[in-house]
Amino acid sequence: MGTSVVIGGTAGLGRFIAARHAGRGDTVIIAGRDAEKARTAARELGANVTGIAVDLARPQTIADSLKTVESVDRLVITAAFQKPSTLKDFDVEEAVVAVTTKLVGYTETIRVLRDRFTPYASVVIFGGLAKERPYPGSTMITTFNSAITGLIKTLAVELAPHRVNALHPALVADSPRWAGTDLGHMAARTPIGRLITMDEVADATDFLLDNGAMNAHDLYVDGGVLAQ
Amino acid sequence: MGTSVVIGGTAGLGRFIAARHAGRGDTVIIAGRDAEKARTAARELGANVTGIAVDLARPQTIADSLKTVESVDRLVITAAFQKPSTLKDFDVEEAVVAVTTKLVGYTETIRVLRDRFTPYASVVIFGGLAKERPYPGSTMITTFNSAITGLIKTLAVELAPHRVNALHPALVADSPRWAGTDLGHMAARTPIGRLITMDEVADATDFLLDNGAMNAHDLYVDGGVLAQ
Amino acid sequence: MGTSVVIGGTAGLGRFIAARHAGRGDTVIIAGRDAEKARTAARELGANVTGIAVDLARPQTIADSLKTVESVDRLVITAAFQKPSTLKDFDVEEAVVAVTTKLVGYTETIRVLRDRFTPYASVVIFGGLAKERPYPGSTMITTFNSAITGLIKTLAVELAPHRVNALHPALVADSPRWAGTDLGHMAARTPIGRLITMDEVADATDFLLDNGAMNAHDLYVDGGVLAQ
Amino acid sequence: MGTSVVIGGTAGLGRFIAARHAGRGDTVIIAGRDAEKARTAARELGANVTGIAVDLARPQTIADSLKTVESVDRLVITAAFQKPSTLKDFDVEEAVVAVTTKLVGYTETIRVLRDRFTPYASVVIFGGLAKERPYPGSTMITTFNSAITGLIKTLAVELAPHRVNALHPALVADSPRWAGTDLGHMAARTPIGRLITMDEVADATDFLLDNGAMNAHDLYVDGGVLAQ
Repeated sequence: MGTSVVIGGTAGLGRFIAARHAGRGDTVIIAGRDAEKARTAARELGANVTGIAVDLARPQTIADSLKTVESVDRLVITAAFQKPSTLKDFDVEEAVVAVTTKLVGYTETIRVLRDRFTPYASVVIFGGLAKERPYPGSTMITTFNSAITGLIKTLAVELAPHRVNALHPALVADSPRWAGTDLGHMAARTPIGRLITMDEVADATDFLLDNGAMNAHDLYVDGGVLAQ
Repeated sequence: MGTSVVIGGTAGLGRFIAARHAGRGDTVIIAGRDAEKARTAARELGANVTGIAVDLARPQTIADSLKTVESVDRLVITAAFQKPSTLKDFDVEEAVVAVTTKLVGYTETIRVLRDRFTPYASVVIFGGLAKERPYPGSTMITTFNSAITGLIKTLAVELAPHRVNALHPALVADSPRWAGTDLGHMAARTPIGRLITMDEVADATDFLLDNGAMNAHDLYVDGGVLAQ
Repeated sequence: MGTSVVIGGTAGLGRFIAARHAGRGDTVIIAGRDAEKARTAARELGANVTGIAVDLARPQTIADSLKTVESVDRLVITAAFQKPSTLKDFDVEEAVVAVTTKLVGYTETIRVLRDRFTPYASVVIFGGLAKERPYPGSTMITTFNSAITGLIKTLAVELAPHRVNALHPALVADSPRWAGTDLGHMAARTPIGRLITMDEVADATDFLLDNGAMNAHDLYVDGGVLAQ
Repeated sequence: MGTSVVIGGTAGLGRFIAARHAGRGDTVIIAGRDAEKARTAARELGANVTGIAVDLARPQTIADSLKTVESVDRLVITAAFQKPSTLKDFDVEEAVVAVTTKLVGYTETIRVLRDRFTPYASVVIFGGLAKERPYPGSTMITTFNSAITGLIKTLAVELAPHRVNALHPALVADSPRWAGTDLGHMAARTPIGRLITMDEVADATDFLLDNGAMNAHDLYVDGGVLAQ
């Protein structure tokens, strides 16, 4: 029960987590950049879900965008500017958007909502495995996901006794992003012999949200990829 | 359901986890160094619990000690030689027992049981926060807990597709070890404003055992102590 | 010999490193935000030192600012927007400047200069210990210094065979920043019994620049603070 | 000048480092398991080199073996029981020797010599990259090298203000161990485009020994292998 706020909840992993919380009866607020898309997604997810527009790339607007949120039991932020970047074709404007979204946008969202946290509220923010293993196109993604480790440390101290954790998923087999892509070679290289699933990521998110001892932790949900 | 094997399950966190699994109907095998103590603890925990004697400090004996274990769905190893050691008063014999127990004993236990793993079986081994933050008396404890990080990496690769994770708890408020000790100063220094509990550690253990995407991960269950 | 480029070389650690390289006969280019200040510092450092203006907070201008740099044997970047930030008094505009300077500005500088790298050229970028241990006011500093770990990984791959390393200094005893401040309590808490020095940081920088096997490494120069 | 003690100094990297120190005029004591071999190596390295027998696998004998060492400015320990081990063919006796050598033997050596440390003496102990990336046969090597991270933390605190660092080398191109082996595929996978050299490892060792701010640090000397 209680209220889950999922920034980035209109698609992908965020939407999956929102659906799970809605399905068990939580009040859920999902946010995406586009208001219409957020409302549509909310309608599809159920009567207890509301969709609002929040643009983390314009952090000056976040406080106003979140003014209808009244209380927060669980805050999950998955949003990211994921457009590939390389050193060779580095686009300065896009890079500023990327780090602003992830680092300033996330921080500002948490700052705005913290006064509405219920006593046991906690936060989970998403990074990703590019943090540890860069790939072609991950120049900024690797960089901002690496920053997540520092962000949860400082926030865990500043938000205490509230808890803030990070979740770094590997490639997710059933993510809409990979629909139609053959990921067999990636599955073969994963120790568990397959890619991870949205359900496993959502379960791990709930673990971090609910276990009162988990704090300032970087949870790698990767099937063992980093052991290699 | 299925079978949980808890090495170190006759006392402390291991016993707490065993009790939880027994309470939900699992078949549980607990092991401690002393056969009589193991049988007594098993009796106290319920009809579905069996106690056996296993001495990780004598790894040559482990295969024989475990011969009655028929199948394993969950393997949890918490046992450790916890006697304090310092550089100043370093006792070579005890240090050999300490690293043998934790590193050779754990590995041999897993080697012996792996052929009895059911298809989705997984392993959780315990370290502790001394790994990251030494304290007076932790010379060998810090050292062998640090080795756990390497051990789960190599085992995750060698046991694939079976999963192996580590759990590093902070000081546990309601551990029998601290009965009668005032830990208020430690609680005050923890971001969550209190020490962690046995229940939280057991919940985290189950998360690692059950979430099929968690592998080769060092889970710090510490209330945020390491953020500081 | 050869050419050292030090971005942030007009003051503090950057200037100290530039002076050291100038003193041994390198051609040195120091850059700071203010052209006049850069030229003055260059004059003070010697005839083989040139001062130019580069503003990492405006990454669109970096390519033009660096057009007079002809070749690079050693690139050191120490510049940072160090103004304290806290979650409580979070200033979105300043936070964008902070992450833009450190993450986009550093990356763009390296992109611009890479074609002028000599065959054995390497890069050292500065983070700091706030990465691991937040302090009041370090919200963004902890965050962007944490990102440095990811940045050197992706750049080491993208710049290969050129090398990129990071240096994370603790509080530096003889930094001009602390002139007149009593840091005795910090010294007492450092295992070596004192704070680190500019000379030690400069020596460590040269080690990373010169040892051809060092790559993608986070070097903590901290007297052992992180062991505690 | 001063005295360098190199445990494991009769062959490989240890011998290379000893030769370097001897060549610049240090008094050098090299130790290996075999007394005759140690004396022969010492003779080959020069008049300022002495060879003694020390067996880290029998830590009870270390104090006696080191009784002729009068003072220590630099202590380097490279010795290891490197015989491959796998979970499949796990040999309990050899595993006990492996962890005893590396963890108890190293600690006991340092305990014995600490009272003979000169005021600025420091220690470098060797691990290796198997710590982070297991390979077939590295079961115990990955485990004990991972323990090195904890060992230097606790020792840095216990030996303060003396310094203790670790060096983790990748595969070394010109190590006698690989004479006659084609390592071209490993070189191709290293970002610097080649394997690291003994000279680079020795230079890194000296950096850790000499820079007074380096303490409790895990130095990875790997050409960037871990970035991938």
